[in-house]
Amino acid sequence: MPDSLAQVREEIALANRILANEGVFDAFGHVSLRHPDNPEQFLISRHRAPELVQPADILVLDLEGKPAVPTPHRLYGEVTIHASIFQARPDVVAICHHHAPAILPYAIARVDMVPVYHLGASMGEKVPFWDSRDDFGDTALVVVDPAEGKSLAKALGPHSMVLMGRHGATVVGASLRELVFRTIYTARNADLQTRAKLLGAVHGLSPEEIKKAAAYNLRPAPMERAWDQWAMRLAEKEGRAGPAARAPATKSAAKAKTGTRAATKVAPKAKAKPAPARKAAAKPKPKKGRGR
Amino acid sequence: MPDSLAQVREEIALANRILANEGVFDAFGHVSLRHPDNPEQFLISRHRAPELVQPADILVLDLEGKPAVPTPHRLYGEVTIHASIFQARPDVVAICHHHAPAILPYAIARVDMVPVYHLGASMGEKVPFWDSRDDFGDTALVVVDPAEGKSLAKALGPHSMVLMGRHGATVVGASLRELVFRTIYTARNADLQTRAKLLGAVHGLSPEEIKKAAAYNLRPAPMERAWDQWAMRLAEKEGRAGPAARAPATKSAAKAKTGTRAATKVAPKAKAKPAPARKAAAKPKPKKGRGR
Amino acid sequence: MPDSLAQVREEIALANRILANEGVFDAFGHVSLRHPDNPEQFLISRHRAPELVQPADILVLDLEGKPAVPTPHRLYGEVTIHASIFQARPDVVAICHHHAPAILPYAIARVDMVPVYHLGASMGEKVPFWDSRDDFGDTALVVVDPAEGKSLAKALGPHSMVLMGRHGATVVGASLRELVFRTIYTARNADLQTRAKLLGAVHGLSPEEIKKAAAYNLRPAPMERAWDQWAMRLAEKEGRAGPAARAPATKSAAKAKTGTRAATKVAPKAKAKPAPARKAAAKPKPKKGRGR
Amino acid sequence: MPDSLAQVREEIALANRILANEGVFDAFGHVSLRHPDNPEQFLISRHRAPELVQPADILVLDLEGKPAVPTPHRLYGEVTIHASIFQARPDVVAICHHHAPAILPYAIARVDMVPVYHLGASMGEKVPFWDSRDDFGDTALVVVDPAEGKSLAKALGPHSMVLMGRHGATVVGASLRELVFRTIYTARNADLQTRAKLLGAVHGLSPEEIKKAAAYNLRPAPMERAWDQWAMRLAEKEGRAGPAARAPATKSAAKAKTGTRAATKVAPKAKAKPAPARKAAAKPKPKKGRGR
Repeated sequence: MPDSLAQVREEIALANRILANEGVFDAFGHVSLRHPDNPEQFLISRHRAPELVQPADILVLDLEGKPAVPTPHRLYGEVTIHASIFQARPDVVAICHHHAPAILPYAIARVDMVPVYHLGASMGEKVPFWDSRDDFGDTALVVVDPAEGKSLAKALGPHSMVLMGRHGATVVGASLRELVFRTIYTARNADLQTRAKLLGAVHGLSPEEIKKAAAYNLRPAPMERAWDQWAMRLAEKEGRAGPAARAPATKSAAKAKTGTRAATKVAPKAKAKPAPARKAAAKPKPKKGRGR
Repeated sequence: MPDSLAQVREEIALANRILANEGVFDAFGHVSLRHPDNPEQFLISRHRAPELVQPADILVLDLEGKPAVPTPHRLYGEVTIHASIFQARPDVVAICHHHAPAILPYAIARVDMVPVYHLGASMGEKVPFWDSRDDFGDTALVVVDPAEGKSLAKALGPHSMVLMGRHGATVVGASLRELVFRTIYTARNADLQTRAKLLGAVHGLSPEEIKKAAAYNLRPAPMERAWDQWAMRLAEKEGRAGPAARAPATKSAAKAKTGTRAATKVAPKAKAKPAPARKAAAKPKPKKGRGR
Repeated sequence: MPDSLAQVREEIALANRILANEGVFDAFGHVSLRHPDNPEQFLISRHRAPELVQPADILVLDLEGKPAVPTPHRLYGEVTIHASIFQARPDVVAICHHHAPAILPYAIARVDMVPVYHLGASMGEKVPFWDSRDDFGDTALVVVDPAEGKSLAKALGPHSMVLMGRHGATVVGASLRELVFRTIYTARNADLQTRAKLLGAVHGLSPEEIKKAAAYNLRPAPMERAWDQWAMRLAEKEGRAGPAARAPATKSAAKAKTGTRAATKVAPKAKAKPAPARKAAAKPKPKKGRGR
Repeated sequence: MPDSLAQVREEIALANRILANEGVFDAFGHVSLRHPDNPEQFLISRHRAPELVQPADILVLDLEGKPAVPTPHRLYGEVTIHASIFQARPDVVAICHHHAPAILPYAIARVDMVPVYHLGASMGEKVPFWDSRDDFGDTALVVVDPAEGKSLAKALGPHSMVLMGRHGATVVGASLRELVFRTIYTARNADLQTRAKLLGAVHGLSPEEIKKAAAYNLRPAPMERAWDQWAMRLAEKEGRAGPAARAPATKSAAKAKTGTRAATKVAPKAKAKPAPARKAAAKPKPKKGRGR
């Protein structure tokens, strides 16, 4: 199934660069995806800044964090974050570890993150807090030992995100699209929570609002809509989208677009193309459902 | 009147992308315009991130939020915001629903927004606050039910903007230009109000200053001047404006430019062109009036 | 002296676009320069967003704010700010009126601006506060009446900058370079003062430090160094600076560069070129003086 | 050894422009490197905005701050900062003096900077505070007199960074890469410390965590990874990186990449190339070590 993995690699590379372009990643942080055909393996970039990751950089590792085939490439030091969570959480398909400036104040001040608007609801009711100091005393703070990875996975529990004291956060998802959506919108929510607090008070969502808003936002339509925008913004930044990319598409470009959700499978090839605007006039089959 | 609608579609698409480029929209939010020839209809993009909206994406809906002609495209889930307000407010020609980072802290902290500088005066003396929880209890926060839309329209009342608890804001205008101007400057005003509060105190405009400053700023000249800048900035971002776009225009480019206000009609075609700088040397008819 | 004015127009247009590019101007604000050969006149753009101003937009006005020759173009509504200050302050050569987000909180909270680092010292020991309400009651806040302009000029007094309540600021300079330098660095200083206050306390410069640091920074060398950077950044944004603009210059490009200060005269033509990097290997005459 | 210095000049110019592109420098600030073959000399740009510095701008000075060979170029006024520290600290290979907006509030409010996340640990346990007023009374705040330089070097002591009251900071490193890494991440750490304080409290690293995290981050792999990203971002900004720069590299581009640390020597020539992405498929020798 070589073609399938080529597409998966392209999607993971794109997710890396999108998260860098949207301000979540700087030179550090990483994204992984469970192998679509083998739940005992996952894909992740070799040791490289996310903004630079290309499909050829994506390696296959096992759930011990070892390369599936020998590789001359350096691995990220913290692959155990991914290996440990994929082991502990069979429902998890994609993982992101990051140090976004918007969430770090919470990891430093030890203040609870809460959803403050509907788009932030995908973090869930609770974001647990993990501190390497509790189990391991003074460390370099990075999660490089499998025991540290397991401790972090335990702290994550059944939740969607875990804050890491004086370090950052780790986010999980049921698909790559969901992961990217949750990662970006939990960071934006954190920033809004901070601003609301400075302004006076934080009146967040009720538990039931969190459930309903999360369910609403994590449908395929809103996630695709956001992904398309992020992919276009990235294409523009990388100089891959000239004026033509935004011109109205010709009728010959029209083709059916399925809206079915792919949890453990990545979206159809057409979605991975970096010039979504070209599909402007695409004619999907009539659909009665609504987006946002 | 196919030509007229082509122009209208172009303007609405431009307004979508301008509002994204100026930091009001991210992947979500939408802009609508009452149909220039049929007040019982309005135009709005199909379900798509505003930054990507093209003229071909603009659909015609009736005041129930149903497509005027069958369409295979997905609609925004919240079209009832637009339909309900166009029903309730015959004076409204354009509507924008958004989640700008600058205004959300007010929707979360439940702090009153007030004009703090002349350019923010277009929000008016009062920005009412609507909370979906009051009438509908725990929801996904999105306004998808016509009853919710009507409740929001009622909360808006005769005002120009309504804050939506834990969600965002909805802004209305007597023209597309006015709407875009008000949307951008109320967001900037909110940011300044926050900074002033952090610095010490908010000494806002008096009621009479609000009226006078709003009237001054919502004349065609200031609104056109701002629109021209936003259109140029967008053209640059989209790679449509090369160095030539900023070069002094030749005399052959000179042509009359009317400054008359078009409330329910969009500006003349020349205004919709994405390279305003080419009109650098345009020769308007002598005018004694002054701008800012 | 047509060639001289062509150069002056180019410089003023550049100053407008630099101030927009560095975050001082949005669609509003304006820059003026006293006529180099006639102190009873000044140059300013026609009614246009600063980011779009081209040399052909620059008009000549008299000290009543009337066009020196009939023009079909709309004027800024607030030309009296410039006319009144040029009248009251023979030492002033350039004026900028703006609404920079960094300074507006001071105009809203009525908190004193003070120099908090050496580069902010060019504001001087005191930035007076003018409130249109004091003399004129409730207005649209804009300064359109000559009486308002004179009141503002009086409040400015012998200082370099005046804050305008709920409106913005007006800055003056002994040259266009000095004006642009002061305008940008007083805005940056304001932002730093705000951050220092949020962090704990503002320990600003002593009166003697202000005098010495202002004298040091307003020498030609630092001002040229900053101007060169701003001009390059603008050229890059406008697509006028390709990779070649940054390549090491060839020896054939070398030519003498005078460092003499031009207060009422603009810099030599070479300075107005938008690709300063081309002068990388320029060979100035040996000089023992030092910059920063 | 003309070839060696050519490479060093290229690296220093790149460091200048990277630090400008990452928000540390504006028109002011400077970077120096001890001469790789003569510890009694150092290299630094002529008087020029860092964002514009090219290899041809780099001069060789002695430890009195005098040019090694006569030069017609203007020098930075504050070369004594570099000369004095290179004299006092034989272990220092590279120095950066800057006024980053993130650190200035600490230099104004006199609040201690502390590492709040692992990437900020490279500042060390203590950042001393130097105030020109203590030894020299009221000055222009700039460090232009050798006595001032020596006083500053004394305040720096054995530390990696020193805050300068109402002025900025000076940072040192054991290599150019280490200096750039420390300069950028201490600025980001400062910004996070400010945000955490606004959010509630600053729970920083323990002394042992600081030591371990600093040692972990200052290994060659993390520093190269960050440098590669910064170099790519700069190349994109300068228009030197087209779409091709990000395309997967061909096998013919593969070549060994040594990971050995070069403290007083700059990295091998390949590292200085401004299009790191072209090395995407480079095949380094198998390595068991891990990065982050």
